[in-house]
Amino acid sequence: MPYFTDSGVFVALEGGEGGGKSTQSGLLASWLTERGHQVLVTREPGGTPVGSQLRRIVLDPATGALNSRTEALIYAADKAEHVEALVLPALAAGQVVLTDRYVDSTLAYQGAGRAIDVQELEHVARWATADLRPHLTVVLDIDPVVGLARAGEPDRIEAEPLAFHRRVREHFLRLAAADPDHYLVVDADRPAEQVQADIRGALTPWLSRSTTRPAAT
Amino acid sequence: MPYFTDSGVFVALEGGEGGGKSTQSGLLASWLTERGHQVLVTREPGGTPVGSQLRRIVLDPATGALNSRTEALIYAADKAEHVEALVLPALAAGQVVLTDRYVDSTLAYQGAGRAIDVQELEHVARWATADLRPHLTVVLDIDPVVGLARAGEPDRIEAEPLAFHRRVREHFLRLAAADPDHYLVVDADRPAEQVQADIRGALTPWLSRSTTRPAAT
Repeated sequence: MPYFTDSGVFVALEGGEGGGKSTQSGLLASWLTERGHQVLVTREPGGTPVGSQLRRIVLDPATGALNSRTEALIYAADKAEHVEALVLPALAAGQVVLTDRYVDSTLAYQGAGRAIDVQELEHVARWATADLRPHLTVVLDIDPVVGLARAGEPDRIEAEPLAFHRRVREHFLRLAAADPDHYLVVDADRPAEQVQADIRGALTPWLSRSTTRPAAT
Repeated sequence: MPYFTDSGVFVALEGGEGGGKSTQSGLLASWLTERGHQVLVTREPGGTPVGSQLRRIVLDPATGALNSRTEALIYAADKAEHVEALVLPALAAGQVVLTDRYVDSTLAYQGAGRAIDVQELEHVARWATADLRPHLTVVLDIDPVVGLARAGEPDRIEAEPLAFHRRVREHFLRLAAADPDHYLVVDADRPAEQVQADIRGALTPWLSRSTTRPAAT
């Protein structure tokens, strides 16, 4: 069963390479902090010490070809640690959590991109995260041709052919279309300030859940 | 659905710490090789390059406390790579595969030992391994007090309290009792040669499946 916490605000930034997730995350964190919220900025894979080691294994070009299940399980292990050790405690403390990638990236990259049973994949990822869902997932949507050019030197994932990245993009858009209450799709091929304004607009209604915000003065 | 291959012989050595799994595996490999079989000697975690890195994360005392799901998923990732990259190709080539630990260790250590849903745990481990089962699992049974004294300097798993190791032992014995056709429980608190003789006796009927054995001369 999907699980949304009652305290704190959980926000995931999703989308293909070069969509500006870290830029947007940084701008959002500054804005929230200025408004008095406590903000945890994190990412998958790699938000914990163990996660960083797992991230190194998956993204290092020297790792070479990995079995699809192996890759999916490494990502799931990172998620389990990330949710348990970082995300849930921050939400319980009433903070705003901004994660750069979450379960949707697993579904889009491993599910749409590679030959693997998406249902089983989702089962594992949901088990790993105790089915915790973001209150708001922002999909920074961009044409892969533009996004990959922006991203620069490719890591092992980015080096996949263009058709892979097109399938990934479609998958993100499908997930967003299926749950419009918890998704915002933004055109990321615009100036960062415009993208940020759209995100702030969609996030604002959720912010009353962040109990770390001081009373209005 | 449990999956036993038609070619090759898949043997797992299981049991608690200090039961002599690597000694028995080595003796068995020599004996099989002398009889003309091609033998793959391997282990979980760590039978592949990626597995070795994962093994280092899980067993290093510096890693500290890991969430139970994280640990289970790291072991599952190791299994997925191990089965796909090493075990299945060797079996397809008609070889005898001897693995030091397999799915039962996951069930016994993570399932019986820690607070985690054993059914979900088994689901993940079976998915990781495509439900491939050993033709014969040898449980090297030993009282944890004796076994731990033999094992010497403890790693992160061995340092668990005695009650943990008792639950692990009981779990191995329960698995063996549930499927006597594919299990051999041996008293490992005896001279290595006696233990080895029992294992050879139980393995012999399965060896006709190893097509790498030359015709009798």
